[in-house]
Amino acid sequence: MFRTHTCGELRLSDINKTVTLSGWVQRVRDKGSLLWIDLRDRYGITQIFLEEGMSAPELLKAARELGREFVIRIEGTVVERESKNPNLPTGEVEVRPSKIELLNASKTPPFTIEEKSDGGDELRMKYRYLDLRRNPLKNNLILRHKLAIETRAYLDRQGFLEIETPYLIKSTPEGARDFVVPSRMNPNEFYALPQSPQTFKQILMVAGYDRYFQIVRCFRDEDLRADRQPEFTQIDCEMAFVTQEEVLNTFEGMARHLFREVKGLEIGDFERMDYATAMKLYGSDKPDLRFGMAFEELNDLAQGHGFKVFDDAELIVGIKAEGCSEYTRKQLDALTDFVKRPQVGAKGLVYVKLNADGSIKSSVDKFYSTEILQSWAERFEAKPGDLLLILSGDANATRKQLNELRLEMGNQLGLRDSKVFKPLWVTDFPLLEWDEDTQRFYAMHHPFTSPKPEDISLLDTNPGEVRANAYDMVINGVEIGGGSIRIHDRELQRKMFTILGFTDEEAQKQFGFLMNAFEYGAPPHGGIALGFDRLTAMFAGLDSIRDVIAFPKNNSGRDMMIDSPSTIADAQLEELYLQLKKAED
Amino acid sequence: MFRTHTCGELRLSDINKTVTLSGWVQRVRDKGSLLWIDLRDRYGITQIFLEEGMSAPELLKAARELGREFVIRIEGTVVERESKNPNLPTGEVEVRPSKIELLNASKTPPFTIEEKSDGGDELRMKYRYLDLRRNPLKNNLILRHKLAIETRAYLDRQGFLEIETPYLIKSTPEGARDFVVPSRMNPNEFYALPQSPQTFKQILMVAGYDRYFQIVRCFRDEDLRADRQPEFTQIDCEMAFVTQEEVLNTFEGMARHLFREVKGLEIGDFERMDYATAMKLYGSDKPDLRFGMAFEELNDLAQGHGFKVFDDAELIVGIKAEGCSEYTRKQLDALTDFVKRPQVGAKGLVYVKLNADGSIKSSVDKFYSTEILQSWAERFEAKPGDLLLILSGDANATRKQLNELRLEMGNQLGLRDSKVFKPLWVTDFPLLEWDEDTQRFYAMHHPFTSPKPEDISLLDTNPGEVRANAYDMVINGVEIGGGSIRIHDRELQRKMFTILGFTDEEAQKQFGFLMNAFEYGAPPHGGIALGFDRLTAMFAGLDSIRDVIAFPKNNSGRDMMIDSPSTIADAQLEELYLQLKKAED
Repeated sequence: MFRTHTCGELRLSDINKTVTLSGWVQRVRDKGSLLWIDLRDRYGITQIFLEEGMSAPELLKAARELGREFVIRIEGTVVERESKNPNLPTGEVEVRPSKIELLNASKTPPFTIEEKSDGGDELRMKYRYLDLRRNPLKNNLILRHKLAIETRAYLDRQGFLEIETPYLIKSTPEGARDFVVPSRMNPNEFYALPQSPQTFKQILMVAGYDRYFQIVRCFRDEDLRADRQPEFTQIDCEMAFVTQEEVLNTFEGMARHLFREVKGLEIGDFERMDYATAMKLYGSDKPDLRFGMAFEELNDLAQGHGFKVFDDAELIVGIKAEGCSEYTRKQLDALTDFVKRPQVGAKGLVYVKLNADGSIKSSVDKFYSTEILQSWAERFEAKPGDLLLILSGDANATRKQLNELRLEMGNQLGLRDSKVFKPLWVTDFPLLEWDEDTQRFYAMHHPFTSPKPEDISLLDTNPGEVRANAYDMVINGVEIGGGSIRIHDRELQRKMFTILGFTDEEAQKQFGFLMNAFEYGAPPHGGIALGFDRLTAMFAGLDSIRDVIAFPKNNSGRDMMIDSPSTIADAQLEELYLQLKKAED
Repeated sequence: MFRTHTCGELRLSDINKTVTLSGWVQRVRDKGSLLWIDLRDRYGITQIFLEEGMSAPELLKAARELGREFVIRIEGTVVERESKNPNLPTGEVEVRPSKIELLNASKTPPFTIEEKSDGGDELRMKYRYLDLRRNPLKNNLILRHKLAIETRAYLDRQGFLEIETPYLIKSTPEGARDFVVPSRMNPNEFYALPQSPQTFKQILMVAGYDRYFQIVRCFRDEDLRADRQPEFTQIDCEMAFVTQEEVLNTFEGMARHLFREVKGLEIGDFERMDYATAMKLYGSDKPDLRFGMAFEELNDLAQGHGFKVFDDAELIVGIKAEGCSEYTRKQLDALTDFVKRPQVGAKGLVYVKLNADGSIKSSVDKFYSTEILQSWAERFEAKPGDLLLILSGDANATRKQLNELRLEMGNQLGLRDSKVFKPLWVTDFPLLEWDEDTQRFYAMHHPFTSPKPEDISLLDTNPGEVRANAYDMVINGVEIGGGSIRIHDRELQRKMFTILGFTDEEAQKQFGFLMNAFEYGAPPHGGIALGFDRLTAMFAGLDSIRDVIAFPKNNSGRDMMIDSPSTIADAQLEELYLQLKKAED
């Protein structure tokens, strides 16, 4: 037997017990006549203590030969520590060994295995098995496990069935790029890996399964931005015979359940906001509501006073930074630089300082009287001590720029505490987005999203104005998930494909099975998909998903540990009826 | 709102309630002045009742226009039925509708949606969404969901963490054929889909995760036999610091938990049998223990009497079919034909009838006296009325043939009841199998399986004799899962690769990351993988896994519903630096 207890288990009540422990040597402290080993496993650290004279010489010798990350098995007796460590659950006891057995040696790890490692990203990715020994990563994966367990517990209780959908499916050019898998048995044909089980979950509704979910891997062959992975995990759900309200309540309930069970937090009811309001008040379809700083528009108060920038602008809009009137020239310049960065793209920044003494100082004093500036302050319900930051220009672009500035101010003022959670439903998204490059409409969500019944008549006259029965779950400015009530009528689905530029033949080739299914008694249905990596990262208080995934890929889609992708044998290519073409550099 | 209740919910206690139901029209019975609709959803069937005179004429008209599988929503009042249906949970009530709303019409389905369908396999695969509406399939998927939930509940309580491993990994030529995925970002390189997460779960043990599991999809590009799927699901588990005994107890406990929670059965302790015994007594490494009929060997009693067939045989071995002495000539001929089929491959069958009157009749009377035949009967502990069936020839081949005959007799005698479960651990598998064609050893389990310590010295002298720390979970003659204690020592792992014919370079290229990991403190570890499709099929009492999978593929690896695999666009091939080669017919 390798152990009677784990390294996180022994307490004062175990004193005098003979125990066996196995684990890794976290460190050895050798003070000459006294020697301590910190023995670590997944569950904790237990101190092993040896003393010249009291411990057998061969034990001391064995202990002195141990290095970091050696794997050992010890037998010994639990004793009370003389100097207790209140920071360690096992800190009141230690084990006096009667036997030390080396189970496996270790080379010196290329980086330290501590809370904070001294290893660079690349090294830690290559030796992922060592990085994963570190507490922060271990805690992330334990958290991820708990979230999955509680997600399933909630959905099971709500009558959802977890049903596995296939991974070898069919390539569809709509949406992101597919990973494809050549078929050997069907020469020159390919499967595709699913970007999501969307059509299959709808098929399951047609098949009468009523409530489906799956925690499922999805694949997108996209050029990877900083925090994207070619494979990612989604909590995928669908319900039949439901209204949007019922879907929102079900998954709001799930989020509350997760916060309660996993973090011990009551997050209360979700706020709700329609897309148009979110854009108007926060310039974002995923506003961070941990702080206010809602936009105020100034066109009526700021135009017609000779300031050409404002006079020519479609929109003049600003935020109020409370208590920031003392911002220095340097700080204001830095904010101006921030909004002028190409990633934000504003041309400039107008400020109005409402000084503590009641006076007003602005970068546009030249054009506006104190009275007028005062009227702006009133619009913001600003008090002495506050600072107004104002952008102008094309309405959509300006709102997006101001959103960036708002978030930056939230950061600067410490208003975005990773321990506070403000969830929100954003609803009534537009059904379609116009793409200037290709001069066509794209589905904002996906082609299966239903338009709001009252907007259906606009499909023929003004498709861009049609609102969808679509909703996003947003927490702290992060889109955790999104979904919609789906189209369940074949004719409406055909019309959607037409608007999206599909010929009937293309629609039939790619989605014929779904449209055919709609002819055999498709119920009204809708659902949602939540990003499980993203959700876990949020619970872990992390911005990046990389460290909530056991074996992530780097920005080139490579697994640094196993060194994949890699070349394959000619015989394999031969069997698949494939030839390689040289990539041109 | 689409419903206040499901179609499986209403009882006598709901009488006089106003309810809303939604579902599918199972059938309409129109008796002129009386009309019944069976309304179906996932949860059951509720009878809707209309009566000329009492129901509004427009309701009757609407009801008469309904066809099979139409989707409707009805509002109405629950009343007590005059003639109750005790076979239906809702059979004491019916609903008198005040409103019938058509939610979606349906074409006439191409086959009946009843317990037994009249549709052929191909049609049912194409219209899988209709086939999935049938109770048997629905019940299978509900069973599968429950098994997954209870598997996770048990493993979570045992301290296992579910950790997701990647699907885009690296191709390794050892084992079955991989599905590969061309990488666009890494031209001319490929990912492979995992045949199992074997190396990753071992890496997780090296990383200190102690107890890992995952219910995970696996992929094998094999020529599909009747009951194989290119993608299948596995309950994949690994533990560190464990002996084989601890692994067996943990997963025996899991199986007991599943039988108890999902089927309400106490299956008791598993029998254990080593591989050599299983082969000797049953000619199979997965014996069906629902019935006895263990093999008896007769070499000592049957050789040297002038019957050349037996005299020349390496092994003479038989089974006893109790109470079968009255088998007719025709029945015995049929058994002879059975063993002579090419799939079984025996040359002939010798029988000995122990007649009820005490006389003995055998097909080899000519060579053996009644006394000798009597001595055979004693070896079998046979009584009057029993029948002995004896095969001979090369030992291994003959055992396999007799295994087939034993199973056939079990079937004929009704000894293989799908409601009885006899679980078994088969242990001590050989480490290696010699392959005559390629003149080399292959790993019987996989290259990471550890030899028994006491057999390690044989690795150099007689590798074929080395036994492994490997075990299979067998229930009713079906291999549900298999596992082993792994090698955790780099040198031993290297040696295994050498025995398997890898050069050091090949081993390093393919499994270098694992062997490197073994140098940084790898703990002793072992695990198991259980076939989740197979397990579900066994719980469902089915021989085939196809109907416990929502969307299976056919024997050519095609998904008939979505018509996949399919061709992809030239632009996609271009991006992947691939060219197609024509398949030669």
